[in-house]
Amino acid sequence: MTSSETSAAWSRLEAIEHSTLADLFANDPDRVSKLSQRIEFDIPDHGPNGVLLDWSKTHLSDDFLSAFEALAEAAGFDTARTALFDGGMVNPTEGRPATHGAMRGSGTEADVEEAMALLARMGMLVDAIHNGALGEVKHLIHIGIGGSALGPDLAVDALTRDLKRMDVHVVANIDGLALEQAFAACDPATTMIAVASKTFTTTETMTNAASALKWLGDNGVSDPSGRVVALTANPEKAVEWGVDETRVLPFPESVGGRYSLWSSIGFPVAMAVGMEDFQAMLAGAQAIDTHFREAEGRANGSLLAAFADQYYTRLRGCQTRAVFAYDERLALLPDYLQQLEMESNGKSVTATGEPVSASTAPITWGGVGTDAQHAVFQLLHQGTQLVPVDFIASIAPGDELDPAHHKALLMNCLAQSAALMAGGNMSADGKDPARSFPGDRPSAMFLVDDLDAGMFGALIAFHEHRTFANAVLMGINPFDQFGVELGKKMAKDMEGGEGEFDASTTALMKAAGLSS
Amino acid sequence: MTSSETSAAWSRLEAIEHSTLADLFANDPDRVSKLSQRIEFDIPDHGPNGVLLDWSKTHLSDDFLSAFEALAEAAGFDTARTALFDGGMVNPTEGRPATHGAMRGSGTEADVEEAMALLARMGMLVDAIHNGALGEVKHLIHIGIGGSALGPDLAVDALTRDLKRMDVHVVANIDGLALEQAFAACDPATTMIAVASKTFTTTETMTNAASALKWLGDNGVSDPSGRVVALTANPEKAVEWGVDETRVLPFPESVGGRYSLWSSIGFPVAMAVGMEDFQAMLAGAQAIDTHFREAEGRANGSLLAAFADQYYTRLRGCQTRAVFAYDERLALLPDYLQQLEMESNGKSVTATGEPVSASTAPITWGGVGTDAQHAVFQLLHQGTQLVPVDFIASIAPGDELDPAHHKALLMNCLAQSAALMAGGNMSADGKDPARSFPGDRPSAMFLVDDLDAGMFGALIAFHEHRTFANAVLMGINPFDQFGVELGKKMAKDMEGGEGEFDASTTALMKAAGLSS
Repeated sequence: MTSSETSAAWSRLEAIEHSTLADLFANDPDRVSKLSQRIEFDIPDHGPNGVLLDWSKTHLSDDFLSAFEALAEAAGFDTARTALFDGGMVNPTEGRPATHGAMRGSGTEADVEEAMALLARMGMLVDAIHNGALGEVKHLIHIGIGGSALGPDLAVDALTRDLKRMDVHVVANIDGLALEQAFAACDPATTMIAVASKTFTTTETMTNAASALKWLGDNGVSDPSGRVVALTANPEKAVEWGVDETRVLPFPESVGGRYSLWSSIGFPVAMAVGMEDFQAMLAGAQAIDTHFREAEGRANGSLLAAFADQYYTRLRGCQTRAVFAYDERLALLPDYLQQLEMESNGKSVTATGEPVSASTAPITWGGVGTDAQHAVFQLLHQGTQLVPVDFIASIAPGDELDPAHHKALLMNCLAQSAALMAGGNMSADGKDPARSFPGDRPSAMFLVDDLDAGMFGALIAFHEHRTFANAVLMGINPFDQFGVELGKKMAKDMEGGEGEFDASTTALMKAAGLSS
Repeated sequence: MTSSETSAAWSRLEAIEHSTLADLFANDPDRVSKLSQRIEFDIPDHGPNGVLLDWSKTHLSDDFLSAFEALAEAAGFDTARTALFDGGMVNPTEGRPATHGAMRGSGTEADVEEAMALLARMGMLVDAIHNGALGEVKHLIHIGIGGSALGPDLAVDALTRDLKRMDVHVVANIDGLALEQAFAACDPATTMIAVASKTFTTTETMTNAASALKWLGDNGVSDPSGRVVALTANPEKAVEWGVDETRVLPFPESVGGRYSLWSSIGFPVAMAVGMEDFQAMLAGAQAIDTHFREAEGRANGSLLAAFADQYYTRLRGCQTRAVFAYDERLALLPDYLQQLEMESNGKSVTATGEPVSASTAPITWGGVGTDAQHAVFQLLHQGTQLVPVDFIASIAPGDELDPAHHKALLMNCLAQSAALMAGGNMSADGKDPARSFPGDRPSAMFLVDDLDAGMFGALIAFHEHRTFANAVLMGINPFDQFGVELGKKMAKDMEGGEGEFDASTTALMKAAGLSS
């Protein structure tokens, strides 16, 4: 990859004329088949499953697709993709590879072997607890923040609607109210604590862990430390903190926090759904890894999604993209994707330290359908901001109520996507400007056969690779996150009575009783 | 207000030079006191409370403030504000006033009198249920969507951490999983159902209500309809549907859905916290009404916030604004504000039907601190998007754990706001571009003494008026929401086998089994 080659590719993109969605459909009767594909997989004991991806309602034309494929080539997409799975140095600023793929079997032989050993060890502990080896365990308080919280919280919520083997509470915030809410729902006599921190030094997590142990002790548990499982890339620190080595589940340093659901950070998921479904989640992710490694150009689902992302961010000036899951099980997905995409690609320098010449990650936001239709869709339909939207829905229902519920859910999802593109006027004479809809607003669709554990893993892995593909197209490193350091340092300075603060902050500290 | 006057005011604003935050602070030693204020109130039996608003870390200079005050005058802010509280025609497209203020005592004598009578009636029913008049009631399933759900959900979550008089579940989504989740947590023998719909025809709500009654009946409740309370502006429809008149709690047609927390839509809040705290919530809102009615220009907190909103949206091209509550009790606040602001002001035409000449509502997004620091703050600190941020924190803790929790929470909140503005470089030699923070990123602070029911009401009312002030400055009607109609119509067409859909939607309908 050379910077001049990517510049030329961007110049080519900038020169292409934009068409309306209506024109794109009118001018190409094959548009839907060209921009749709099914990705299918068959997980042993779980059966076949598939997802229909439809990107035809985005503004990507043949010209744009060819030019984006040229950009991918100029940006060294093939080399970068190979490096990702071959343990190459894809995280140069932190001097390490990114081996989350290996956790689900996609990586070098050595990385996969290590991952499978770690997974087997976690499986033994999970099975032992399920079989009563640690006494009766009904509740698990999982303490972690950011990448150690969002994945487990989402996965437990998504996969335990039918049956939950364990009552899991994810606690992240240092606000004591978060922990108190978990305490109120748990019986200390039957509660385990999982402490999840890559470094095992995260302030929030270690403060919450200490308070959770105190709660156990204050409520008659004789050996609070004996109830703790540590999930960390720094096992020595966990042992030092007082966790018995047999209950320390390590994961490799080269697995980033926001990519760690597949590692021992997924322990609460395995506790809630059982190891078999956890393995199915990994298998679904691996199926997407295989697609991502093998499919070329626009036929690669995650790369095609990244083309659209780049189109809207860099060529249409969109500062956001939205995702609406028409499924209660994915209510936490927008929060998860916010971190995945914004922490990975919310950067201002390239992987080699040059200032970027254009916008990087948009703000990912969204919600659940149909709720969001009654809250924020007003702006999507009639606001002045252009927002590319992703819709996600499952053909198989998750509920067992009257099928009218699920049918209405699906129809609303498809109708919104149709309405955003079509536009129109809802007044009797078709002229009332307040009832006018400009249309030409883009969306993409993920229509899955059945949202089971395998499909859930597939959806998450799809977005990991979409994020990576975006990073490659922009030439940035998606695996570091130095942007979180300055605020941490200033909070520490404040606590230590050090540092100088601006006049506003000084006044606020005084008003809050944090300084005299 | 004339359009040429506002155009001139905007031209003046566009001509003003922008300064960095550092320069604004350096050039004016009184900046903090000029752009900070405390709003205080004293609610009988709840005691004094106050909120410190600090807008000094925004880019508003004296020049901008004066020019925005001129814009407010040109846009007829005084007249509009008077009309809002005097029952004027502030919602011309729907031909009605907006009387949510009257629900808390701020309105015309007739409107307030009607509101107080409705409130008294609700209070009698709430007290009767609390006193056992309808038998043992432990659970309330509140069924509503959009404005009938977000306010109750937020208020119940925010105000019941200490003590909950009733287990309340808010169900919005037509996805049957939402209702099933509530069923799983409730005992049908002791469950009441609140059905909240302004029109009493909302598809999601009526479908969910029918399934909830079926669940009661299937589980041994002999008279399911006898367990229903209806919250609606269409009481006839509720009676027709089968709710006994004594359990129909009406609210006026002139109270908009997203402004209806103060009306009988707040019934589940009153059930959960009791009427006394519900009244305190209204009193806190009324205190802000009084401030908003009386304070002029930049001294008016909500108007000042709107000046900043307009500055970032229209003069700096920001497509979003973010709000981070450093308090678990306000975890749902960003969702609430999303609807309030985006559904109110996400429009493309003025109140008189002219196309707007500039951006309207930004996308409101956010989350909870400290969680968000480990998820999305990377982009805020180092991304390419400029995002104005609001921080909210309470000096008094909500938790009873070790005070270290709350102290760290507050310090992190203030440190983030300081860090966004200060910037810097976190590498040893101060030169690593990957560890560089540009700074000059704006934020505003709401530092409240104590987040009790009164303060909660005050915060919500503050944002209602901020939304109204923004609408006035842009010349749009914040009280209609025609943007939700087209998608609804297309979903109905799809269900009826009518209408023509684009090729993508047609293919998706087939894939989903919704057409042959």
